[in-house]
Amino acid sequence: MSNQEVWLPSLQTKTAQEGFELALKLSRMGVKSTQPDVEVLKRLRNDYAEDAMGLTAASQVVAINFQTVAAANDYWK
Amino acid sequence: MSNQEVWLPSLQTKTAQEGFELALKLSRMGVKSTQPDVEVLKRLRNDYAEDAMGLTAASQVVAINFQTVAAANDYWK
Amino acid sequence: MSNQEVWLPSLQTKTAQEGFELALKLSRMGVKSTQPDVEVLKRLRNDYAEDAMGLTAASQVVAINFQTVAAANDYWK
Amino acid sequence: MSNQEVWLPSLQTKTAQEGFELALKLSRMGVKSTQPDVEVLKRLRNDYAEDAMGLTAASQVVAINFQTVAAANDYWK
Amino acid sequence: MSNQEVWLPSLQTKTAQEGFELALKLSRMGVKSTQPDVEVLKRLRNDYAEDAMGLTAASQVVAINFQTVAAANDYWK
Amino acid sequence: MSNQEVWLPSLQTKTAQEGFELALKLSRMGVKSTQPDVEVLKRLRNDYAEDAMGLTAASQVVAINFQTVAAANDYWK
Repeated sequence: MSNQEVWLPSLQTKTAQEGFELALKLSRMGVKSTQPDVEVLKRLRNDYAEDAMGLTAASQVVAINFQTVAAANDYWK
Repeated sequence: MSNQEVWLPSLQTKTAQEGFELALKLSRMGVKSTQPDVEVLKRLRNDYAEDAMGLTAASQVVAINFQTVAAANDYWK
Repeated sequence: MSNQEVWLPSLQTKTAQEGFELALKLSRMGVKSTQPDVEVLKRLRNDYAEDAMGLTAASQVVAINFQTVAAANDYWK
Repeated sequence: MSNQEVWLPSLQTKTAQEGFELALKLSRMGVKSTQPDVEVLKRLRNDYAEDAMGLTAASQVVAINFQTVAAANDYWK
Repeated sequence: MSNQEVWLPSLQTKTAQEGFELALKLSRMGVKSTQPDVEVLKRLRNDYAEDAMGLTAASQVVAINFQTVAAANDYWK
Repeated sequence: MSNQEVWLPSLQTKTAQEGFELALKLSRMGVKSTQPDVEVLKRLRNDYAEDAMGLTAASQVVAINFQTVAAANDYWK
């Protein structure tokens, strides 16, 4: 997924909650970079969004990305 | 999940135990951001809350988020 | 699991081994916070304690929590 | 995969988005180093690119590598 | 596993290789703390030692513990 | 695997790519330390090298070890 669209201008966010949103975006872009076909992603949605392990695994990716964004923002101290 | 409700004002907590509570909240918000439908989440609860691997996986997400919150609070030294 | 019982007064421990014990406790509390029903946890014990992947997954959660506790104690240098 | 081709000259990137691209590359090289046979990798593509858990797992590897690249670039502050 | 036997006197090691050995020990103690019955552990050995995912998962726990031990020793610089 | 053969003299490498090679070695040694029998490892190779989840899981272990090696080398700045 290395087109010219700028979707990640910076890791800096004003608030922790915006940082969490950015972590969600990073997690989704990790999926989209691997599977760019939005139709496939829509078809697969229920496989994880209606599956306990799928949701926990998704939450884990967000947690790792949030750890990165939080460190990037000195934990919004 | 980018509505206006402020659920994460800060990563700072007074105590380590409150930090653990925040890690639990971050983990649950990671799930809710992926699956906002509370009815679906209720239906899926037993799939992980009555499953050894599901509980271990959930505990791992909490551990990663707790690592972030603990660093954010300089380990409450 | 946000009752008033103080189970995590601090991340500081005198020794690395006590730090490992605290990491075990954090890991178990991550499970208990998700599934507070001790009877369910007892019923599920063999599902992970007699399962290779279950034991490895549990050891991984301890490793992540130990990483946090070790950093919190400047590695007991 | 220890041939003379230089595919990783540096961890430094100009932008966060380029850093994310590098994290994708590191993740793919982790796979290619384990399975150099491109025909096998092509055959296996649908097994993860059309599977929710496969895509989430891939996104997690990217998240870990992005954490490394972001720290290497002082979060592009 | 909170008996009086001192198995983890320190995280400091003379060399990186000894640090790797310590990471192996921490990983095994994470399993033993969850399942102290050595007979059960022996019975389960083939379940992971003769299983590709089991071996990869075990290697991941070692990698996390090695990350902790390496930081504790300032990477033996 | 605590024989006298020195396979890990140091975490220092001249380049990021050599650091990635070292991360691959650490990951493989994590497996070999758990299952020293090379014949078993050969027999199991296709189970992960021809399996999408197996390859992703292997790439994740490399990512964690690379994170350690990169920090050990101050990201080769």
